[in-house]
Amino acid sequence: MDFKNIIRKNNLFSYLNEGTIGIEKEGMRIFADGTISDTMHPTSIGSRDNHPYIQTDFAEAQLEFITQPENNDRDVYRWLGTIHEVMLRKLPNNEYIWPLSAPAILPPEDKIKVAQFANEKDVKYREYLSEVYGKYKQMISGIHYNFGFSNNFIEKLIDITNKSEVEVRNKLYMKLARQFIRYQWLLVYFYGATPIVPKEYFRGEESVSAVRSIRTSKYGYVNKDNIKVSYNSIEDYAKDLRSYVDNNQLIAEKEFYSSVRFRGAKSVVDLPGKGVEYVEFRLFDINPFASYGILEKDIRFIHLFAMFLIWLDEEDITTSVDKGLEYSNSIALSHPLSQVKYKDEGERILDLFVEFLEEGNYSKEDINIVLEKKEQLSKPDLTVGGKLWLKYEEVGDMLQIGLELAKKYKSIALENYYRLTHFSNMELSTQAVISDAVAAGIAVEILDENDQFIRLSYDGHEEYVKNGNMTKHDSYISPLIMENKVVTKKVLAKHGFRVPNSYQVTSKEESIRLYPKVENKPIVIKPKSTNYGLGITIFQHGINNIEDFVKAVTIALKEDKEIMIEEFISGTEYRFFVLNGETKAVLLRVPANVVGDGISTIEQLVINKNKNNLRGDGLSSPLKQIALGDIELLQLKEQGYTKDTILEKGQIAYLRANSNISTGGDSIDMTDKVDASYKLIAEGVASAMFSKVCGVDLIIEDIKEKATSSNYGIIEANFNPMMMMHIFPSQGKSRRLSEDVLKMLFPEKY
Amino acid sequence: MDFKNIIRKNNLFSYLNEGTIGIEKEGMRIFADGTISDTMHPTSIGSRDNHPYIQTDFAEAQLEFITQPENNDRDVYRWLGTIHEVMLRKLPNNEYIWPLSAPAILPPEDKIKVAQFANEKDVKYREYLSEVYGKYKQMISGIHYNFGFSNNFIEKLIDITNKSEVEVRNKLYMKLARQFIRYQWLLVYFYGATPIVPKEYFRGEESVSAVRSIRTSKYGYVNKDNIKVSYNSIEDYAKDLRSYVDNNQLIAEKEFYSSVRFRGAKSVVDLPGKGVEYVEFRLFDINPFASYGILEKDIRFIHLFAMFLIWLDEEDITTSVDKGLEYSNSIALSHPLSQVKYKDEGERILDLFVEFLEEGNYSKEDINIVLEKKEQLSKPDLTVGGKLWLKYEEVGDMLQIGLELAKKYKSIALENYYRLTHFSNMELSTQAVISDAVAAGIAVEILDENDQFIRLSYDGHEEYVKNGNMTKHDSYISPLIMENKVVTKKVLAKHGFRVPNSYQVTSKEESIRLYPKVENKPIVIKPKSTNYGLGITIFQHGINNIEDFVKAVTIALKEDKEIMIEEFISGTEYRFFVLNGETKAVLLRVPANVVGDGISTIEQLVINKNKNNLRGDGLSSPLKQIALGDIELLQLKEQGYTKDTILEKGQIAYLRANSNISTGGDSIDMTDKVDASYKLIAEGVASAMFSKVCGVDLIIEDIKEKATSSNYGIIEANFNPMMMMHIFPSQGKSRRLSEDVLKMLFPEKY
Repeated sequence: MDFKNIIRKNNLFSYLNEGTIGIEKEGMRIFADGTISDTMHPTSIGSRDNHPYIQTDFAEAQLEFITQPENNDRDVYRWLGTIHEVMLRKLPNNEYIWPLSAPAILPPEDKIKVAQFANEKDVKYREYLSEVYGKYKQMISGIHYNFGFSNNFIEKLIDITNKSEVEVRNKLYMKLARQFIRYQWLLVYFYGATPIVPKEYFRGEESVSAVRSIRTSKYGYVNKDNIKVSYNSIEDYAKDLRSYVDNNQLIAEKEFYSSVRFRGAKSVVDLPGKGVEYVEFRLFDINPFASYGILEKDIRFIHLFAMFLIWLDEEDITTSVDKGLEYSNSIALSHPLSQVKYKDEGERILDLFVEFLEEGNYSKEDINIVLEKKEQLSKPDLTVGGKLWLKYEEVGDMLQIGLELAKKYKSIALENYYRLTHFSNMELSTQAVISDAVAAGIAVEILDENDQFIRLSYDGHEEYVKNGNMTKHDSYISPLIMENKVVTKKVLAKHGFRVPNSYQVTSKEESIRLYPKVENKPIVIKPKSTNYGLGITIFQHGINNIEDFVKAVTIALKEDKEIMIEEFISGTEYRFFVLNGETKAVLLRVPANVVGDGISTIEQLVINKNKNNLRGDGLSSPLKQIALGDIELLQLKEQGYTKDTILEKGQIAYLRANSNISTGGDSIDMTDKVDASYKLIAEGVASAMFSKVCGVDLIIEDIKEKATSSNYGIIEANFNPMMMMHIFPSQGKSRRLSEDVLKMLFPEKY
Repeated sequence: MDFKNIIRKNNLFSYLNEGTIGIEKEGMRIFADGTISDTMHPTSIGSRDNHPYIQTDFAEAQLEFITQPENNDRDVYRWLGTIHEVMLRKLPNNEYIWPLSAPAILPPEDKIKVAQFANEKDVKYREYLSEVYGKYKQMISGIHYNFGFSNNFIEKLIDITNKSEVEVRNKLYMKLARQFIRYQWLLVYFYGATPIVPKEYFRGEESVSAVRSIRTSKYGYVNKDNIKVSYNSIEDYAKDLRSYVDNNQLIAEKEFYSSVRFRGAKSVVDLPGKGVEYVEFRLFDINPFASYGILEKDIRFIHLFAMFLIWLDEEDITTSVDKGLEYSNSIALSHPLSQVKYKDEGERILDLFVEFLEEGNYSKEDINIVLEKKEQLSKPDLTVGGKLWLKYEEVGDMLQIGLELAKKYKSIALENYYRLTHFSNMELSTQAVISDAVAAGIAVEILDENDQFIRLSYDGHEEYVKNGNMTKHDSYISPLIMENKVVTKKVLAKHGFRVPNSYQVTSKEESIRLYPKVENKPIVIKPKSTNYGLGITIFQHGINNIEDFVKAVTIALKEDKEIMIEEFISGTEYRFFVLNGETKAVLLRVPANVVGDGISTIEQLVINKNKNNLRGDGLSSPLKQIALGDIELLQLKEQGYTKDTILEKGQIAYLRANSNISTGGDSIDMTDKVDASYKLIAEGVASAMFSKVCGVDLIIEDIKEKATSSNYGIIEANFNPMMMMHIFPSQGKSRRLSEDVLKMLFPEKY
């Protein structure tokens, strides 16, 4: 099949550009001194078996980060970053992830623990590998890049060529494999980054150093020389590979270490009949200068490279694979700063690459990525390996280089621990759920980022989540009841809860008729639709003369045709977060404030308080910075302060009258401090509204006293309560509600 | 207790005005000739046992209409009307409800069937009554008026008097009972309306006619003369009554026929200890000129009268009851047009009544109701009995009068059978649910009329319903998924349903890159947020040149930054209504149209079509009137017609291009015509979205063909689908979805 002509004539470039990409990246857990960690795989991230994101590779300490198949390069990068962030935050304090492919120090071989999978076969296979190749080779980490063309593209090819799907797939992927191997030297040149390894690695045999990539050279993880497999056709390939296994020269098909592995069948013998589904490129060293081992633009480059290789005409296919392997090994073993031996071929190929992109109408950004690589062909110091070697020459110690980077990457991850860098456009609550799901091994699919809509799945069980806590477990009637204050009151009153009595009135005359009913009672008079608190009068200690009453009614009636005369319930407002029948968190919100130290001015105290990492814009951060604007200065003035006032130690100054978190308020966890009777009330309220996730606002006179029929009142119930306030309170214990949501959704997992 | 002073000094008028009211009204089922129906109680309204609204009284044909306790007079009336409407619509074609208290003809006594309750004791009691009083007395129907003061009022009295609740209640209701009996002659005068009865009624004994109220006179349903009970105190009352039962002079307490009956305990002996809860006034004849036997203003008058009686000072309590009974009997047996004997007392009392209302700051409307009654004191022809007698003098036949009224009331109820007169401010779907619930014997409580929020209950099982079909059975995630088109598509595609492919594009360049993917396919190009169809281009037969494509893209991009290039699925759109996993209805919507008869002009055809009762404003009616405005005339013009065109027989003219019901479109039931495979698809769509009530819009090429992967497409799913279109289609079978909703909510009931 002449793919170039098929693509060109049928303008298939946009179909070619589709495809599915996944990354598997290894990384060794190390201690602060750079030695490989001897602890078990952290239990904080669930079981490694069937974990969709984080598993172990060869060694117990060797983490494997896995992205789910994605349809665009940016998402692959975002997920790779997210999985790293989650893992780094779950690591023990004294552990880090080694950021280079090759370790800087190696432990005695017998101290290396192979990964302790639940399945004994997995453990046995690793033990076999240890025997054949030694454990040290397995200590080198790398990146696998999975790539498959889109079904749309395959269907187009079937339509055009009138061949079977199996034939199309096998022809396509065989060409891709041959071409990849033929030109992989370019990738080794750009990305090779294992210049040296500890001397123990060579076990006293022939050694090498100051090269581009030991890992992808013949000193890396390769089969013995006598293992040679034909790439002429999938049939030949399968026959050759299988015969090595049948002759026990390989213990399993997967012991064949090619830079391209075909996927789509349990055994290679089934591929000719089933067709290749996708391929795995296994060539990449870890880029130590990329936080997650590979840059976003390099994920794109490799994707474009695969597309280009399908388009590019082939050389003699009987010799191209051998030639490619020879070139690749040669580049791998050349000095990281040496001029590249095959520069002419490289430039020719990259020029064709650009031509291809231009013909296919690909974007300027794509072309620039290739042009940048072309520049590197004459400037080896710009390649990853070149840069690493320059750094090594400067520092003189790979251990120090690696440790510095490892610590830097971990500290970046910890710094804004409350958010996911790559999903920071989403709400913090949803970020928390994604984060906890990734850690627990529940697969996450983002359905609509702007709408905070995700799909979670675990072992065939799917759940949809919106805004972090809206799920199929909540009944639709719940938000409908809660949105309607009249209905809410009727439902709660029917269940015997205390809700403020309230009367709706539309005239002064009507209110006068009503007066005897509220006389001497504490009441609030307010317009039905309140607007910035206009027209509200509170008679906190009881209304005891009709003149004041009528005055307040008149004020309220100026703001709205209909006004409410409502019982005033005194006490403090607390937010109860009820989940699946249980009060999981109780929070007190306090207006923006500072507490004096006897030395600092209020302004200095505000600046200091704002240094708290949790305080930011209040959207991408759990708390809001305290402002010092007109409202705050006025509020200070009412207390007799200015911003230059120095408060005595322990003295408190409020910068706001309202307690909203969004105006700099504090959030104080009170979960363990309120009497259990109020939690029962909150749970009863949620249950009366058929609600599984519910924020109940209670006014309580004294949280230490048991609830009676008159010492509390229910203000309202919220069907989309903010989880962040509880997860990241400004004082008190964090309540990880996002994890509670997951426990409700996937009880079988916890 | 000096209630007048307590109320006056503490300004308790507004508390006094609260209270709970319920009406029980009897009505005999009759045939078209006025004879009493001999059919069984209709099964269409569920079991009579425990039915909250419609039961049977003494005879099988004697319906009893019961309103639930309400807190305001207007609601009592609305419910009484609603229950009547529902019953009238459920009656067999040849049955009516007799609108007078007294029957005009009586069957042989042995032909009267006592009500066939499930509980044998209920039947036995009726048989005993037949023996003691004869069956004829039981053939007279009336109204019972239940009244209780509010708990707020009682609590106030307790606070002020410092007495126990039981004492307060018993003192209050004993005064009410004595006062009621003392002045009930006024009510007999205003409302008495049983001037004559068939002669068989008197069983050959002393008879009477041309009087105000045989029913409330000594010829009515009264105890033997030797039964006399003291009203001095609840203790005396209980002792007296109980001794009659113990001596077998009465078979049960309920055989004591007073015009006031105390309620609140199973046996009267418990009342002194428990306190009276409310009273039942049993004095009222049916007002034949009121559709439901009593007018709204009379419900209010009796309520105000009870309030006034508590306020009014008592005469000597040892004689007042006897005096009242004497007055009352005298008035009952006076001629309906005679001047009232106790006019002076009446005027004095009504003047005090008005004084009371004025002092209590009650409304002008309330005062006018009393003043109207005062006028009647000197004008007997304005009383109900007076009016009835005048009519009788005119017609000469009570049977004819009753039959005319009975037929009129039934025909009014049938006329707008799709709505409830007294809840016509609510949505038709909610009205249908209320109507079906009332019929089935499921209690309805309106929580918020404007928000279409109701509570249903049956045998302790409660359900909330909003908009007629939103319930706790629907998951909250369903509307969230359906509201988001992107997520909807992802969910449906994941489940293997056919949704139109669509691409979002923001520039011409991007669209050109995309072009090869849509070439030769039928597509729609449209702005992402469509506005009145601006910027939409449809390539129904496939787009086959890039110039037209780019032109359409440019047009769409003028309307929105983001545009959609979407697969166009050809066929006809149908609405599938899925409820609880089952497709209950399928509807085709057709643009407003008329079909020619070879004689009429289009204008005449429109006028005729609009005569259909279902067509109105499209809000309080299921269908919309077809307009003949500019848009319709333009549409006709495009077909070569004017409004004066005479269409040939069978020829069709469209007045609209769009098929909305809201612009006069037809709704055609297709439930039995579509292939079952599409119903399965609709059910699958609902299930994929966790939805119990769902409207699925499918585009189908041919409803007779089985669904394949390509001959249909899903447009959208709706979480609040209009039930009315299916319940009242313009063509085809009605699908009573409101009843299906109730069956889902109360499976134990059906």
